[in-house]
Amino acid sequence: MGGGSWATALARLLLRNCDSILWYMRRDDRIEDFKRLGHNPAYLTDVQFDVSRIEFSSDINYVCNHADTLLMVMPSPYFKTHINKIAVDISDKNVVSAVKGIVPGDNEIISDFVMHHFGVKSDKVLVVAGPCHAEEVALDRPSFLTVGCHNVQNAIEFGNKLSSPNTRTIPSSDVEGIEYAAVLKNVYSIGAGIVHGMKGGDNLLAMLVSNAIREMERFIDEACPRPRCICDSVYLGDLLVTAYSRFSRNHNFGSIIGKGYSVSTARMEMEQTAEGYYGTKCIKEINKKYGVEMPILDAVYDILYRHANAERAIRALGKWFI
Amino acid sequence: MGGGSWATALARLLLRNCDSILWYMRRDDRIEDFKRLGHNPAYLTDVQFDVSRIEFSSDINYVCNHADTLLMVMPSPYFKTHINKIAVDISDKNVVSAVKGIVPGDNEIISDFVMHHFGVKSDKVLVVAGPCHAEEVALDRPSFLTVGCHNVQNAIEFGNKLSSPNTRTIPSSDVEGIEYAAVLKNVYSIGAGIVHGMKGGDNLLAMLVSNAIREMERFIDEACPRPRCICDSVYLGDLLVTAYSRFSRNHNFGSIIGKGYSVSTARMEMEQTAEGYYGTKCIKEINKKYGVEMPILDAVYDILYRHANAERAIRALGKWFI
Repeated sequence: MGGGSWATALARLLLRNCDSILWYMRRDDRIEDFKRLGHNPAYLTDVQFDVSRIEFSSDINYVCNHADTLLMVMPSPYFKTHINKIAVDISDKNVVSAVKGIVPGDNEIISDFVMHHFGVKSDKVLVVAGPCHAEEVALDRPSFLTVGCHNVQNAIEFGNKLSSPNTRTIPSSDVEGIEYAAVLKNVYSIGAGIVHGMKGGDNLLAMLVSNAIREMERFIDEACPRPRCICDSVYLGDLLVTAYSRFSRNHNFGSIIGKGYSVSTARMEMEQTAEGYYGTKCIKEINKKYGVEMPILDAVYDILYRHANAERAIRALGKWFI
Repeated sequence: MGGGSWATALARLLLRNCDSILWYMRRDDRIEDFKRLGHNPAYLTDVQFDVSRIEFSSDINYVCNHADTLLMVMPSPYFKTHINKIAVDISDKNVVSAVKGIVPGDNEIISDFVMHHFGVKSDKVLVVAGPCHAEEVALDRPSFLTVGCHNVQNAIEFGNKLSSPNTRTIPSSDVEGIEYAAVLKNVYSIGAGIVHGMKGGDNLLAMLVSNAIREMERFIDEACPRPRCICDSVYLGDLLVTAYSRFSRNHNFGSIIGKGYSVSTARMEMEQTAEGYYGTKCIKEINKKYGVEMPILDAVYDILYRHANAERAIRALGKWFI
C-alpha cells in the first residue's frame, strides 16, 4: 500500500519470494502508467517489474479484503487519509508498517495506532526499518532490514519474504523502540543536513551524531523502557545511513536551511516535504509528557517552527556536546 | 614534539594561550624552512605562525630539559626512534600523548609506555584525542578535543591551553579507553574506506560502523574495564570523523584497497603509511591475550597481512552484522 520509492523497493523484494502481490496505489493514472511502462512512473524508474505478477488497485478496501498481510508504506503525513478509507475488518490480518513516522495529530506511533484503531493484536503488528535506502535496494547493493514484532517468529517469517542475496533481514521484538528511532533519525538528519549546508565540518557533524544517538537512547528508554543496545544497526546504523547520506530527503532539506534559506523556501524546493519536518513536531509534543532532555530536537524544532537562526542554533549546541 | 599536520594544528592552538613554545622537529632543514616561510613547509601550509614565539630545536634532550610539559605528536611507527634519544630525566614532567597509536613491537599504548619507560606518574600522563581533524582545526571550524588524565584537574588545565573560540576541550579520566579507541577507529576506518572503494554503498557502511562501535566497546571493556558510554564523542564521534571523512589517511588507504589494488600498491600510493596499518597488527596481537570476538578487526587484518580479497572479506562480514 503506497506508491513511493520505499513501497517500490519493498515490492521488488517481495516479488523475489512471492508469486504475486496486490498493490494499492491511490492514483489510477499512475497505475495505468506503471502497467504500460513496466515500472513505477515516478520513483525508482530504473527498476523493471513483471506486471503480470502484480494486481494493482486504487480501491484500498479491495486490497484489504483480498490480502492476508497488509504492508503499509505511505508517507506518514498522508497515512491517515488512506487509512480512514478502510471500511472492512482487518483485525485478523498481519499489518506491517514501513511508514517510519508518527500519526500526526494523534501523536501515536503507527503500530500503536493500528492496534487501537483496527483492533489488530500486538503479535500480528510488524514494523520494517533500516538501515536501508530504497535507492540502494534498487541498485542491488548490500542492504539490511530490521523486521520488528512482539512475536519474533512472525518477524522472522515476514523477514524471509523480504530477503534476497543482497538483502538480509534481522528480526527484533522492540517494535516501539524501532518506530521511535525511525522518526528521530529523520529529525537528527535534518540537523546533520544543516551542519552540511552551513559548512560546519566533519568534527561538528560527528559531535552532532554521537550526541544525537545518546539523545535518542534517553528518549526511547523513557518512552518504552526495555533492554536494548542503541548501537544496534536498527538504531545507530539507520541514523548513520540517513545523517551521512545525500540520498536522504531529510538531510537535503536540512542542507538547504543550513545554506541560509528559509524553512518555507526549503519546503518549496523539495518535491515532497521531508518526513522529519512533521516528525520533529510530533516528538516535541510527545516529549511534553516525558520531559526528556533533548537539546538537539529542541534546536531543530526552534529552527523549523520558531524561525530560530539555523547556524546559530546548531553552533549553540556545540557548547554542551559531550 | 613532531612536525606533521597534527603537531602543527596543536601548536597553533597552544600559541593562542601560551606566550611561547619550544618545538622539537627532527630535521634541521625543515626548521630552517619553517622559520623562513613562517609556516610548516610540509603540512597545513596555509597556517601562518609568529615564529618569534617559537623556539625550534632538533635536539630532543634540549627540549625535554627546558619544557615543563612535553606534548608528543609523532606518528606511532616513529615514536620509539624519537623517544629512545631521550637521555634526560623526564619523570617529573607532564607528558601528553597525541600520538594515537600503540608502540609497535612493545604492543603497549603510549600512556603505559611513558609510565613504564620514563617513570612518569599516572596523574602526570595525559592523552589528547578527537573527534578532530588537523585540517579543520586549521580552517577554524568548530572542533572538539578530549583530554584524558587520571587526574581530571590536570586534564582540565591542559585542555584550557588548547581551547579557543572554535575549539572546545572535554576532560576525561578514561586514559586507556581513549587510547585504544584512537587506535581502533583507524582500523575500522580502513574497513570503511574499503566499503567506499568497492562502492559497497551507504547501507553496508552504516552496518560496518554500527557493528564496529560495538566491537570497540567489547574490546575496551575487556582491556580496561570501567564504566564508560561508548557513544561519547571521544569514542563514537572520533570513529565517525575518521570513517566518514575524505580527510582521513586511513579511509583513503582502505579506499585504494577497496578499488582492487594490492596492499603494497596502496602503501606506495600514500605519502605516509596509514597508522591503522600498524594499529591493526598491534591490536590483533594484543587481542591474543583477551580473545575478544572482533570479526571486523580480523577481516581487516586478513586483508592487510594475509592477502585476503578485500571485497569478499568485507561482504562476508555482512552475513553476521546485527
